[in-house]
Amino acid sequence: MNTIDLNCDIGESFGAWAMGDDEGVMPWITSANIACGFHAGDSSTMRQTVLLAKRHGVAIGAHVSLPDLQGFGRREMKVSPNEIYALTLYQIGALAAFARAAGTRLAHVKPHGALYNMAARDAALADAIARAVHDFDAGLILVGLAGSHLPRAGAALGLAVAHEAFADRRYVADGSLAPRGIEGAVIEDVDTAVAQAVNIATSGNADIRTGGTLRLHADTICVHGDRADAAAFARKLREGLMAAGVEIAKAR
Amino acid sequence: MNTIDLNCDIGESFGAWAMGDDEGVMPWITSANIACGFHAGDSSTMRQTVLLAKRHGVAIGAHVSLPDLQGFGRREMKVSPNEIYALTLYQIGALAAFARAAGTRLAHVKPHGALYNMAARDAALADAIARAVHDFDAGLILVGLAGSHLPRAGAALGLAVAHEAFADRRYVADGSLAPRGIEGAVIEDVDTAVAQAVNIATSGNADIRTGGTLRLHADTICVHGDRADAAAFARKLREGLMAAGVEIAKAR
Amino acid sequence: MNTIDLNCDIGESFGAWAMGDDEGVMPWITSANIACGFHAGDSSTMRQTVLLAKRHGVAIGAHVSLPDLQGFGRREMKVSPNEIYALTLYQIGALAAFARAAGTRLAHVKPHGALYNMAARDAALADAIARAVHDFDAGLILVGLAGSHLPRAGAALGLAVAHEAFADRRYVADGSLAPRGIEGAVIEDVDTAVAQAVNIATSGNADIRTGGTLRLHADTICVHGDRADAAAFARKLREGLMAAGVEIAKAR
Amino acid sequence: MNTIDLNCDIGESFGAWAMGDDEGVMPWITSANIACGFHAGDSSTMRQTVLLAKRHGVAIGAHVSLPDLQGFGRREMKVSPNEIYALTLYQIGALAAFARAAGTRLAHVKPHGALYNMAARDAALADAIARAVHDFDAGLILVGLAGSHLPRAGAALGLAVAHEAFADRRYVADGSLAPRGIEGAVIEDVDTAVAQAVNIATSGNADIRTGGTLRLHADTICVHGDRADAAAFARKLREGLMAAGVEIAKAR
Repeated sequence: MNTIDLNCDIGESFGAWAMGDDEGVMPWITSANIACGFHAGDSSTMRQTVLLAKRHGVAIGAHVSLPDLQGFGRREMKVSPNEIYALTLYQIGALAAFARAAGTRLAHVKPHGALYNMAARDAALADAIARAVHDFDAGLILVGLAGSHLPRAGAALGLAVAHEAFADRRYVADGSLAPRGIEGAVIEDVDTAVAQAVNIATSGNADIRTGGTLRLHADTICVHGDRADAAAFARKLREGLMAAGVEIAKAR
Repeated sequence: MNTIDLNCDIGESFGAWAMGDDEGVMPWITSANIACGFHAGDSSTMRQTVLLAKRHGVAIGAHVSLPDLQGFGRREMKVSPNEIYALTLYQIGALAAFARAAGTRLAHVKPHGALYNMAARDAALADAIARAVHDFDAGLILVGLAGSHLPRAGAALGLAVAHEAFADRRYVADGSLAPRGIEGAVIEDVDTAVAQAVNIATSGNADIRTGGTLRLHADTICVHGDRADAAAFARKLREGLMAAGVEIAKAR
Repeated sequence: MNTIDLNCDIGESFGAWAMGDDEGVMPWITSANIACGFHAGDSSTMRQTVLLAKRHGVAIGAHVSLPDLQGFGRREMKVSPNEIYALTLYQIGALAAFARAAGTRLAHVKPHGALYNMAARDAALADAIARAVHDFDAGLILVGLAGSHLPRAGAALGLAVAHEAFADRRYVADGSLAPRGIEGAVIEDVDTAVAQAVNIATSGNADIRTGGTLRLHADTICVHGDRADAAAFARKLREGLMAAGVEIAKAR
Repeated sequence: MNTIDLNCDIGESFGAWAMGDDEGVMPWITSANIACGFHAGDSSTMRQTVLLAKRHGVAIGAHVSLPDLQGFGRREMKVSPNEIYALTLYQIGALAAFARAAGTRLAHVKPHGALYNMAARDAALADAIARAVHDFDAGLILVGLAGSHLPRAGAALGLAVAHEAFADRRYVADGSLAPRGIEGAVIEDVDTAVAQAVNIATSGNADIRTGGTLRLHADTICVHGDRADAAAFARKLREGLMAAGVEIAKAR
């Protein structure tokens, strides 16, 4: 039987500003990528979010980002691999402290936003992130775009990696995601998105936006927490996958 | 024989801005309090500073601060104990990651600037800091103003604590430091400062600025890294204490 | 006939985080206090908010704050009058640039959150803020807690000042607001809040939380934009005041 | 007679961190580009720097930057023209407030670091900056890399522009600067740098790093304030240009 992890970006509130429906999404996912203060998530939010994930038995991961609160980590920055190594280590350590204080531990690391995209296509940055993860704890799982440089860099260092696919985004023929600005890049319809997730999880295929089929191995599927219907979407995704005979379980 | 630790605040550069003479001070001290990004010290600086301390065999500590880069953590902020707990844990974790990646570990935690003073006189904040240290690693040493609430809060939780005294600052009768603005608060003359350190380390006495003697137990003495002559001062302090028969060794 | 200004704190979104119902509140108020980037409001938000206020013919004011995004400017910080002068000038200038580019101009300045409270009770800080306003443009109106140090400092420099009262907060006998934590400090019921505003605007009286009556002159009444029902509250406040024969008009 | 402006980036200290020799450079330059808080320069530093420039009769300009204190504004960020417009306006306004409070006014605007380079080669960003300058004050001078998109965008809006050349940097054949990392990109020898400045100012020629000559019109020459010998360099540059019959005067 096929097994898939369901991950979601959470803990993205900051100070007085709330974001997302963390409580609503938690029951349906298996892995939580928690913001570490660089694009979202102050230290008090991180503490609460770690406790929330622990209560739900959801795997806790560091969602590391470029330092850009105002841009929510979505603006690419020219940062050297050495700096990326250091800021990745910093954020992993900060989040791990809350896990440790809560009597649990980190399970995975996933870059956020612009850093995620940069690490997918830039081997040197991917290697810097993988080394930071490895040097902190060689038992952590590194999550990145399926088939991209990031999981490759992690595997090269002996890390467990999770190839990530998206239910509600259309793919380009090279395996990257169609940029958000482009028509049809985001799959708004929930049933269509669930169907894409089932297709990926059961057959390893995804439709290409401009036609044709992409071969794609995925270990984890992303539930976008910034959808207005995130909790309902997460639930339908989980139920749709299970109905198709896919086991939902944490990556390992 | 009396034993004393010599600690110094280091790693206080930030981005393009350099501060302090970390290389010059390192050979003479036994404990380094490393800035964690909240008052100084970006992630790349933290990485380098941890490696520098490790090379010198100097104990690595987290110098945790209020979030105030522009004010260098010297401006008091009304922050709740819950927030102090969370931001202390965050900073300890971030620095610990660099120690871990370097194959070593944190030895101690010391609050910086305004947080140091607040934790000395406010039992609830002192307790919040002590709990954060304890919940991260009950084997860490908590450093605070000699005789103040902070070491008391640490001891109450079973932590090893280090009572800190100052060579180049005058004391008030209640054991606090005369504020920097006041005349005579800072001892500029190196020999006078060394004499005060020797007096504290060997007899447990310090002169009060306005006259009289304060009884004072100290485990560690602070070398101010922001003195222009910090390296020379550190060396004279070390040599003066050793000449007076005091052993210089890491707190434990 | 009595005349009163209705002011509201707006433009408090930041980057990806939305806050408040600025569009909904605008039609009912006469003055907008726009966040300047220190507690909320990035430069793009400031631009949009200035344009929104201009479209509604609402007076544009700088809502200046301590530098504390994470704490939303609500945590007191020990900042010197010189620094307060400089950071007030900085924020006024930044917001004024958007007004200027939009072909309009600033009308007033109001400190936010912790700075508001500090300026109400600390004469030196109040003077620093008033001087910054005066040195930027002696034609600006300075808004502060009715009867407190801030309007006094403004008047001493020849500035027009607006004494501010609150519809939905209970008063202490000394004219300050009962702190939010205390029972009954916030008037949740809209009709009761409107009644307090009418009482203040028509008779110059407000009930004291613990009993008795406070004499109070108010030029402007604050509509809290962070209430869930902010737009409806603003409308009822405006209609209630008008029904009581109070003219609603910008302070001048 | 040829006339040239000498400009220098100043006011780049931040909080407790000092940078540059502003006092030493001031007597030799005619235009000061003052950091506005995004890459350097807090509000208190901005105030002091404006007063310093005014005392020396040096033209005051806003040195606007991407929001990146840690990277000192030197890391390129993918920021949209709309955001660039807003952050440019914000920074101009903030600095202008200090000029206004000091009884003087802004004369020019120059982008800093990564934004300078992006605006030189990207027409849309150049236009966004030029519009912000124009919308704030159509009488301001826009300073940018000689012959690049930025002065072109300014001129298209009717702004006065100043084409900037560099004494101590080698040029590429397309008129851009050889990147700092490349051998020979920085001219360390002061006499060689002065000779390049004289050559540019008197003949409109500059040597290309790889051989050949670049035709180059310059209105202003940059004195790098981050050289260890900045004050001496500025003096020699001024004296060398004057000895060659070049008049040193503010751009206008």
